[in-house]
Amino acid sequence: MQNFTFQSPTKFIFGKETELKVGKEVKHHGKKILLHYGGGSIKKSGLYDRVVKALKDENIDFVELSGVQPNPRLSLVKEGIELCRREKVDFILAVGGGSVIDSAKAIAVGVHYDGDVWDFFEGKSKIGTIIPIGVVLTLPATGSEASSGTVITNEEGWYKKSCGHNLMRPRFAIMNPELTYSLPPYQTASGVADIMAHVMERYFTNEKNVDFTDRLCEATLKSMIKNLPIALKNPRDYAARAEIMWAGTIAHNGLLGTGREEDWASHNIEHELSGIYDVTHGAGLAVIFPAWIKYVYKNNMSIFAQFASRVWEVEPDFDHLEVTIETAIEKMKDFFRAAGLPVTLEELNIPDDRLEEMAEKCTENGPVGSLVKLYKEDVLNIYHLAKK
Amino acid sequence: MQNFTFQSPTKFIFGKETELKVGKEVKHHGKKILLHYGGGSIKKSGLYDRVVKALKDENIDFVELSGVQPNPRLSLVKEGIELCRREKVDFILAVGGGSVIDSAKAIAVGVHYDGDVWDFFEGKSKIGTIIPIGVVLTLPATGSEASSGTVITNEEGWYKKSCGHNLMRPRFAIMNPELTYSLPPYQTASGVADIMAHVMERYFTNEKNVDFTDRLCEATLKSMIKNLPIALKNPRDYAARAEIMWAGTIAHNGLLGTGREEDWASHNIEHELSGIYDVTHGAGLAVIFPAWIKYVYKNNMSIFAQFASRVWEVEPDFDHLEVTIETAIEKMKDFFRAAGLPVTLEELNIPDDRLEEMAEKCTENGPVGSLVKLYKEDVLNIYHLAKK
Repeated sequence: MQNFTFQSPTKFIFGKETELKVGKEVKHHGKKILLHYGGGSIKKSGLYDRVVKALKDENIDFVELSGVQPNPRLSLVKEGIELCRREKVDFILAVGGGSVIDSAKAIAVGVHYDGDVWDFFEGKSKIGTIIPIGVVLTLPATGSEASSGTVITNEEGWYKKSCGHNLMRPRFAIMNPELTYSLPPYQTASGVADIMAHVMERYFTNEKNVDFTDRLCEATLKSMIKNLPIALKNPRDYAARAEIMWAGTIAHNGLLGTGREEDWASHNIEHELSGIYDVTHGAGLAVIFPAWIKYVYKNNMSIFAQFASRVWEVEPDFDHLEVTIETAIEKMKDFFRAAGLPVTLEELNIPDDRLEEMAEKCTENGPVGSLVKLYKEDVLNIYHLAKK
Repeated sequence: MQNFTFQSPTKFIFGKETELKVGKEVKHHGKKILLHYGGGSIKKSGLYDRVVKALKDENIDFVELSGVQPNPRLSLVKEGIELCRREKVDFILAVGGGSVIDSAKAIAVGVHYDGDVWDFFEGKSKIGTIIPIGVVLTLPATGSEASSGTVITNEEGWYKKSCGHNLMRPRFAIMNPELTYSLPPYQTASGVADIMAHVMERYFTNEKNVDFTDRLCEATLKSMIKNLPIALKNPRDYAARAEIMWAGTIAHNGLLGTGREEDWASHNIEHELSGIYDVTHGAGLAVIFPAWIKYVYKNNMSIFAQFASRVWEVEPDFDHLEVTIETAIEKMKDFFRAAGLPVTLEELNIPDDRLEEMAEKCTENGPVGSLVKLYKEDVLNIYHLAKK
């Protein structure tokens, strides 16, 4: 087990009707608020009205910035930064899913920075003063409600890049599973694929003797495998929605990676897809992860055999562990397929013609991954494995 | 799943040589420190010298209070409160195990309180201003390095009582598994029994649809079942020591209880043992928990059958689930016995003559437990089941 520092200070307020508490929570942190959200869905569902009422009940002064898209854009972040400066905003409330939260985080780091906020994503500058943020979560997937990172897409060149800092972790996250009843099946399933990917990026490690976190990871994956079909069958199943929502947070607040070397190749490889083709991140991961496992598993048979046995309940064939592992890959693909997710680039309608360009871009700052370091050729091979 | 609020803001600094960072951490929080510890063990091991050097290197001014005993005493807490007031202490550094941390927490809540600190333990007063504390942990067991509670023994009448508040959670916890190499086998095993008990108090619930936290609990228990024998066989096995130390924290920082109704009868029943006979808390739990399960399991067969099957790997006999569960109880007792722990009151050298008095005291404020509410007669029956 490696040395680590872990701190997840976010206050999680979880359960039915918890969004009504948002005014009281915000009041602890700020005087002038930016209310940040996506499109019309929170207005249609009535959530917008409930949040605004809760803010007004506490006499909280706020300005609004809507229009966050999936794979949130740098241009809107810059607009938000200008708005916060002009209005002297001291707290950002993100109401939405991971895209809105990530956009809020990027605005939060930019407000008190003199240069271009993209500098942080290119590693050109170190994050300093940050405006605190809070969250009302509507889509369990990215774990951004607890994580220290943000992923933003720069439309100039369609670069999708991340940056992170412990101070970026939200002060509070209000999580009412009922708010996810209205999610379309595809969004629900993509969210779970993203959650599972966050666990797997940590699970697949060469670090030995990490038994406790191995098992926490397996627990999280098994719970998703059990609960996604329930939520798809009955979108108003509170228990299944709640399990998915809470697991999504724990999958990515850092706990499951403590003491481990994490991988993150699949996320990088997927980012090129959703950067260029604007596919749903979780759906992209459902395509890339099985291909990645297929490409790398021979480098560490024990961790993948353990995954096959404990998570997918494949009876190990100790003479042919590769059979055991490949069976698990097929079970994982069947699981995603049954949830209505794509498992090939073809199903994502992604053609061949830019695969090389994506592999190039993915590795332009050096190889990706840590279980196995992957260079351009490897990434290209994985795209080809994912084709159909 | 129940609504919940969960926040575990403690910064965990985990791994080899991390105690050398204590000066820098303390410096963020206080100017005048109380260094609080137990007896000679941290002096013998050299830890005391390393901590003092780290404090001096940062020019941190401190006073000392040693002498914390297992089942920490109210009299020393009161002495600490006086000392902190006199010396204008604004931060307490606890170096030791759960007793030292609990003692530090009790001092921390008392310093700025006008009345008797015991008021908080009797529920007569609400906790207000608290001096922050930090921890260098030497014994994984109570989880006090992350928890919001403290348990103190009042020598006047040998009452062992707890109180809690989120503000009591330590600001940081420095956790070097190497510091636990020198723990005697009995302390190591008792610590693990305590850790497992913290999980089981949360696991055994009537709340349905808590699949994710069920599995996190099982993961923690299985990891302890695997790693305790390794640590006992080779006390210097870093990996096993690290698994136990980190699991001990997660077992009791509140995560595993999120959304669940918790029980805590066994802890209450055990407190009467260690209050009067001064037995090691974890050893007392190894005696009480199997007896408690035996007494209550028929009230919720599914959770105990799941426990038997998933944690102790007993193949379920679906026609006779009671056989499945009783087999698991025997496996649990065998596990504790093999670790050198007592599993009967007889082995703890506790005679019969005060059982009734203990049952009376345990329930004097009403029944204990939540899976099943236990009255005086029930508690007495459990003591009798635990006799031999």
